[in-house]
Amino acid sequence: MTREMHPQRWGDARRAGPLPATTQALVDHAFGSRPAPTVEEVVLPAPGLPEDLLVALREVVGTAHVHTDDATRRLRTRGKSTPDLLRARSGDLSDAPDAVVRPGSHEEVVAVLAWAQRHHVVVVPFGGGTSVTGGLVATREGYAGLVSLDLLRLDRLLEVDTTSMTATLQAGVRGPDAEAALAAHGLTLGHFPQSFEHASIGGFAATRSSGQNSAGFGRFDQMVVGLRAATPVGEIVAGSAPANAAGPDLRQLLLGSEGTLGVITEVTVRVREAPAEQVHEAWRFDSFAAGQAAMRHLAQHQLLPTILRLSDETESALNLASQSDVGGDPAGGCLMVVGHEGAAVARRRAEVAEALTALGGTPLGEERGRHWYAGRFAAPYLRDSMLDAGVLVETLETATFWSGAERLRAEVTAALEAALGEGTLVLCHVSHVYETGCSLYFTVAARQGEDPLGRWLAAKAAASDAIVAAGATITHHHAVGTDHRPWLAREIGPVGVSILRAVKAAVDPDGILNPGVLVP
Amino acid sequence: MTREMHPQRWGDARRAGPLPATTQALVDHAFGSRPAPTVEEVVLPAPGLPEDLLVALREVVGTAHVHTDDATRRLRTRGKSTPDLLRARSGDLSDAPDAVVRPGSHEEVVAVLAWAQRHHVVVVPFGGGTSVTGGLVATREGYAGLVSLDLLRLDRLLEVDTTSMTATLQAGVRGPDAEAALAAHGLTLGHFPQSFEHASIGGFAATRSSGQNSAGFGRFDQMVVGLRAATPVGEIVAGSAPANAAGPDLRQLLLGSEGTLGVITEVTVRVREAPAEQVHEAWRFDSFAAGQAAMRHLAQHQLLPTILRLSDETESALNLASQSDVGGDPAGGCLMVVGHEGAAVARRRAEVAEALTALGGTPLGEERGRHWYAGRFAAPYLRDSMLDAGVLVETLETATFWSGAERLRAEVTAALEAALGEGTLVLCHVSHVYETGCSLYFTVAARQGEDPLGRWLAAKAAASDAIVAAGATITHHHAVGTDHRPWLAREIGPVGVSILRAVKAAVDPDGILNPGVLVP
Repeated sequence: MTREMHPQRWGDARRAGPLPATTQALVDHAFGSRPAPTVEEVVLPAPGLPEDLLVALREVVGTAHVHTDDATRRLRTRGKSTPDLLRARSGDLSDAPDAVVRPGSHEEVVAVLAWAQRHHVVVVPFGGGTSVTGGLVATREGYAGLVSLDLLRLDRLLEVDTTSMTATLQAGVRGPDAEAALAAHGLTLGHFPQSFEHASIGGFAATRSSGQNSAGFGRFDQMVVGLRAATPVGEIVAGSAPANAAGPDLRQLLLGSEGTLGVITEVTVRVREAPAEQVHEAWRFDSFAAGQAAMRHLAQHQLLPTILRLSDETESALNLASQSDVGGDPAGGCLMVVGHEGAAVARRRAEVAEALTALGGTPLGEERGRHWYAGRFAAPYLRDSMLDAGVLVETLETATFWSGAERLRAEVTAALEAALGEGTLVLCHVSHVYETGCSLYFTVAARQGEDPLGRWLAAKAAASDAIVAAGATITHHHAVGTDHRPWLAREIGPVGVSILRAVKAAVDPDGILNPGVLVP
Repeated sequence: MTREMHPQRWGDARRAGPLPATTQALVDHAFGSRPAPTVEEVVLPAPGLPEDLLVALREVVGTAHVHTDDATRRLRTRGKSTPDLLRARSGDLSDAPDAVVRPGSHEEVVAVLAWAQRHHVVVVPFGGGTSVTGGLVATREGYAGLVSLDLLRLDRLLEVDTTSMTATLQAGVRGPDAEAALAAHGLTLGHFPQSFEHASIGGFAATRSSGQNSAGFGRFDQMVVGLRAATPVGEIVAGSAPANAAGPDLRQLLLGSEGTLGVITEVTVRVREAPAEQVHEAWRFDSFAAGQAAMRHLAQHQLLPTILRLSDETESALNLASQSDVGGDPAGGCLMVVGHEGAAVARRRAEVAEALTALGGTPLGEERGRHWYAGRFAAPYLRDSMLDAGVLVETLETATFWSGAERLRAEVTAALEAALGEGTLVLCHVSHVYETGCSLYFTVAARQGEDPLGRWLAAKAAASDAIVAAGATITHHHAVGTDHRPWLAREIGPVGVSILRAVKAAVDPDGILNPGVLVP
């Protein structure tokens, strides 16, 4: 499988088939075909870096690793949010980098940063390119140019410590390659976000990614025990122990820093034995509230399975399962997916089943669980098919404490419906749970209308306002990028903003690292 | 029980009885009585704040809450490290604050900081006063004076959310008071460090404390879901969700900030149902290495009990149990304490027992476990008795990844023995474990000699050098204070130092908050 993604679509475009029948029926009456231009029809701006800068850059990494051709630059333009795709589909690739540079080592990353600082060139670190929040769309005004720092060649598993159960991976290793390299040692990382097939280890760290196995394995930031990063003022190596009391944890500053405070080049992660067994099953609950109460019970009684997801009534009813992670009609209720992986699966499964039954759940068997598992990385392909069919479709997510989840969901849903008008469909699921709260993940489908990008940006702003007003977080696992930046400022307040700016100024005094991203 | 501690000793001095027979035998041949002067014999420096500043301060919090008398200032002088105690016992209270100020609300803390900034007065936040790393010994050169900001009056449980299972406590609530307030709701925090009887919620957060139940409940920093802090440039409120991807986690900057970046006034913590059952038992392993391998197995197979501790051969052999948390002779091997609290204790106990037996452990029954439990907060009293008997005694701790634990222990032990000379006793135990590593806690006993303080500082420096040289952390749960500051700089490197300084400058531009502590 290719890890490279189509410049206007998700992943391997051949995997985006026609819409499933239910979805087709949903969109037929109101929407229309919106085919995108072919890739070659879209013209990129000419690369703008002066030749002498390119000569100097080639000296740093070698001529073979500096690319200014359209094909390579196209593949390193923006990420995969619906706004990113809409811009690309409308023929706008104005954010294309002037060059794509591929250093082959930590030392070459350091040298590229020195070059960029010397010439005041913007550096946009690029891992898998799966950002859905504008994390790859930096400001270039006032700079001599912009390069995409592609970590593709930092693709090695550097060290495995089977006593400590840690592994050190270079930042550019993609999800499946990391798992394959670890599998050779009988190990797994256990991090499976929807972007898994393309995204990179460095990207997981830089965005505080959270995977489908988070109930059992934790968030990616919980898996990280060490980080190495290059900054314009020197190297940071963080992680002298699993945990410590040696002041503020600097790992936690690099995690979620989205390429603005340094380029993460190596990540040391906790690993586990590859699962001996795994089982995925489905459950039905009468309502989203009943299902959430059951999730909450499991989380608060140390009964969490490896995977735990719950779709609301609408998402459960829509048979989108052939290309997505949602379910198929559970007779009017809500669908929960429960997965157990690792050791003692039978015992843990029985315990969880007993609790879920006591809380009103009905087992639906393994087939739906397997179905979810088989299609768990495919939802973004459905988005491409829907965009082709004239549907405006996008997702957004947040998290809050349990006692606020119901109100938060209602207010975000209302904001989206009000902004997008009649016929808008807002689905919600919970895919990450904690003892004290959970994430809420919304999928929105609406008419594209005359100005789909403008319609979405207005709706997203309304939803983000509702999220911040409710005291929830602007992002549970998609990161801040450029899209969430104004709301981040409201979430962390002026002192929080001044802290981020101070750290930024300390490690990147000339502001060459992903300017415009994250830091308000 | 009083939460106030004796100015030269730990806690309630009446609880420090005579030495147990084994220990007495150990010290009789080499050491001699070193009684401390009575409290009243030690003269404090006169309070140095000009009267007009005191008048202004009284206007902020009320006359009743500004104290300049010797008795109050004495109780707010330094912490409880052996160097702190040795200085106090030698009649040196030169670090006494000029005044002790007790604000009654977050707003009054803000007002005190404004007063301090206006007059360039050092503010040393004071919770329980249990620091063992010089966290209460700030620099005063170049300032108009130094006040102890005593959080005693911020003593309320503000909110309990039994849906989210969170509680918001003011920073000055002491450990037992927090547990009592939560017990009224059927809840527990589950944080029981050795300082529990005196230390405060704000102090736990500011130092990244770790408790005896950490295997089951996690470190204190893992329990914190929200923080409110006052800084000279404004308020920080952090914690919009259990976890998020909204950039670097600002909670993680305040956790471990030791009063240098702000005064934590409120902490929202995860709580759990009060344990329905609890059992504490002891196990014997042939060697420290075998016991550690068993701990590692439990941690890496999600089998951790609530409490898990392992003493090395020497610590196991010494019958210090009457006043400490160590064991009593397990016939030449190593003593492990295993505690199960909460629900399903019988099932979890059986699982852990099966694993420990398979790994070479021999059950020693519940009596020793109960004995440990009964004396678990008493070890510091033993230190006072030993200091009285002419023994130089202190503890230090670190953490590392499993594969480095053996070498780290050997090198720290060798450094301490070399520095302190013949007859020195170095004990070690593991009391906090993770999937990827563990803490190592050393107890050192040696002759006091002519210059006990100088002897200890040299030994501690040698041990700290060995820790940093091994790539381990300078502190797993005692924090940095002033004592670890030089080694913190080596642990986090120059870029890490510049980040801490930048954050400090952003939130405390005049450097009034605990100067000289933490930030290199």
